[in-house]
Amino acid sequence: MGAININEMKNMLNFTVGPVMSSDAVREIGGEQVPYFRTPEFSEIMLENERLIKKFAKAEEQAKVLFITGSGTASMEATVMNVFTPSDKVLIINGGSFGHRFVELCQIHDIPYDEINPTFGEDISEELLSPFEGKGYTGFLVNVHETSTGVHYNINLISEFCKRNNLFLVVDAISSFLADSFNMQELCADVMIAGSQKALACPPGISIIVLSEKVVKRVKTNKVRSMYFDLKDALKNAERGQTPFTPAVGILRQINMRLREIDAAGGEQSEIDKIHGIATDFRNRIKDLPFEIVSKSLSNAVTPIHPLNISAYDIFTTLKDKYDIWICPNGGNLKDEVFRVGHIGALSIDDNTKLITALADLNKKGLL
Amino acid sequence: MGAININEMKNMLNFTVGPVMSSDAVREIGGEQVPYFRTPEFSEIMLENERLIKKFAKAEEQAKVLFITGSGTASMEATVMNVFTPSDKVLIINGGSFGHRFVELCQIHDIPYDEINPTFGEDISEELLSPFEGKGYTGFLVNVHETSTGVHYNINLISEFCKRNNLFLVVDAISSFLADSFNMQELCADVMIAGSQKALACPPGISIIVLSEKVVKRVKTNKVRSMYFDLKDALKNAERGQTPFTPAVGILRQINMRLREIDAAGGEQSEIDKIHGIATDFRNRIKDLPFEIVSKSLSNAVTPIHPLNISAYDIFTTLKDKYDIWICPNGGNLKDEVFRVGHIGALSIDDNTKLITALADLNKKGLL
Repeated sequence: MGAININEMKNMLNFTVGPVMSSDAVREIGGEQVPYFRTPEFSEIMLENERLIKKFAKAEEQAKVLFITGSGTASMEATVMNVFTPSDKVLIINGGSFGHRFVELCQIHDIPYDEINPTFGEDISEELLSPFEGKGYTGFLVNVHETSTGVHYNINLISEFCKRNNLFLVVDAISSFLADSFNMQELCADVMIAGSQKALACPPGISIIVLSEKVVKRVKTNKVRSMYFDLKDALKNAERGQTPFTPAVGILRQINMRLREIDAAGGEQSEIDKIHGIATDFRNRIKDLPFEIVSKSLSNAVTPIHPLNISAYDIFTTLKDKYDIWICPNGGNLKDEVFRVGHIGALSIDDNTKLITALADLNKKGLL
Repeated sequence: MGAININEMKNMLNFTVGPVMSSDAVREIGGEQVPYFRTPEFSEIMLENERLIKKFAKAEEQAKVLFITGSGTASMEATVMNVFTPSDKVLIINGGSFGHRFVELCQIHDIPYDEINPTFGEDISEELLSPFEGKGYTGFLVNVHETSTGVHYNINLISEFCKRNNLFLVVDAISSFLADSFNMQELCADVMIAGSQKALACPPGISIIVLSEKVVKRVKTNKVRSMYFDLKDALKNAERGQTPFTPAVGILRQINMRLREIDAAGGEQSEIDKIHGIATDFRNRIKDLPFEIVSKSLSNAVTPIHPLNISAYDIFTTLKDKYDIWICPNGGNLKDEVFRVGHIGALSIDDNTKLITALADLNKKGLL
């Protein structure tokens, strides 16, 4: 194998859904030595992280926040394992690969479940939910933004269903937190899952679980066959701003910097507004291109696009190799059908211009 | 809560056992944007990481390397879950908190086990092993360097025992890899576990599992009740230099830089020699201080010290607050009895001088 130029990636413009680009201040911390962490100083950072995540998620005062060193899937699995048991019966919105992941997790951990399968690209509806009304379910699992298809589900509808049916509501908001409005208290959500590398715009490696007071009690009584994913242990350590095992300390410090930046800039609504502005600008400027937006219920985080004339994956490759721009390819069946453009991370309207210019150039060359 | 000065940690001199200090080149990558990773370019980095880890572990050509986003414990648990089943019967060296962790993992996952309990601070011996000879065991779990007590076990003795008894040998070398000699092939070790934040001197967040060809076959036939820790899935993705879930991409790039640095400097033996030199220098220079080294079988990575007159934890706190130096405190029962001085990471003989000067100053003031 020849030598790899490790630096060739560093000046790419990144419109993927994660990892995304970070602010200068966040990157600066990434360049520092990583501190020892079993100290009151690091605990203080972790407790501030908890406080700001709760503030931005509009979680109740008694909610708890856990920082898991692992991908978003690690926190999805930990949540399924710690919140539910084979005595539960849960509903899962399965409208794409992340909904399917919740299905697989319930299969692996013997949690009885039923699936609701919205049509590709479409939101859920009263009609889809009503057959499951009053049928003895105990929990509801949803990826509020199904990242694979770019569909942002009507979380108010789901929340009302859960309130009426007294269900534990578990929301994977990994690609939506800080990009779309989300109010844990108003929605009576019991779990919200987030990731470091989405709108939080830090390197990947940390996922975040916010637990309501009600679900904390449940977690504390459930027995889990795992050491790494035993959230009882994590909750106990979190009381003093620590974790059971060595966490990704550097990323947790970057998260701290980023949360402070958001706080100083006006909080989560300012961030959501910023991302909304970038998404809207992009969507307005692709109207003349041979594209179709495949989601009928868009998140601010992502625009999922079906190119009418050419393989979506070929567009990804060309933009990467010829224009130093990453967009986000899809996997599996959608590989040639759909690509996604992310609007999260340290992006600007000027960056949109660069992408639009590249796409217009491809179009002119007959490559779209 | 008042504002925390996030920068106050960055100029500390770090003698802990991890996170440790990184080289300038590794830190520089930490300050860069994190690239999108579902690309041939990132796959190439991952395949080079695999190749160099195998080279430095002296693993066989057919060995496989998995990079898990998680702490060392995540890889210990994944290994126990994927390598053994309730039909196995394993032996565990339990001489400290990490040996105890293997015991707990076998309990959680219903793996039948027996413990060997060496005396605190002491190596294992033929006498300790011989009662278990020819008793139908199938596996052996050992933390080659029990990080909590600083005991480096006689791995040759263990290897011979495993060869005679035809056992799968699983070695947690998290705090030993690149600090002490380790030859997977000669030892017939089936699993070696390492971590990003020890002698690999990168930020924490990635642990590494090296699997022999023999144990890969076992992993591929075992059924595991986990998505995140299903090593079959990880093995399949690793063939093309990828991971099933978004990994800590930034840390994996830092690992790549560090592995190249080690390779360019002469390989793993040069790194081991460097760490040995720093450890020996330190041990020679504390002979006049009121300290007792508590391990009778030292790793190059760490010197575990019992201060004769004062709480070990008080020394940790004083060095942190008054001298800007971190040493590594112990937890639990050993908190006041033992502290550890690490010799891994970007440390020099000059750094030893700073620590020795601080300790001599404490001694002069009657604080040792």
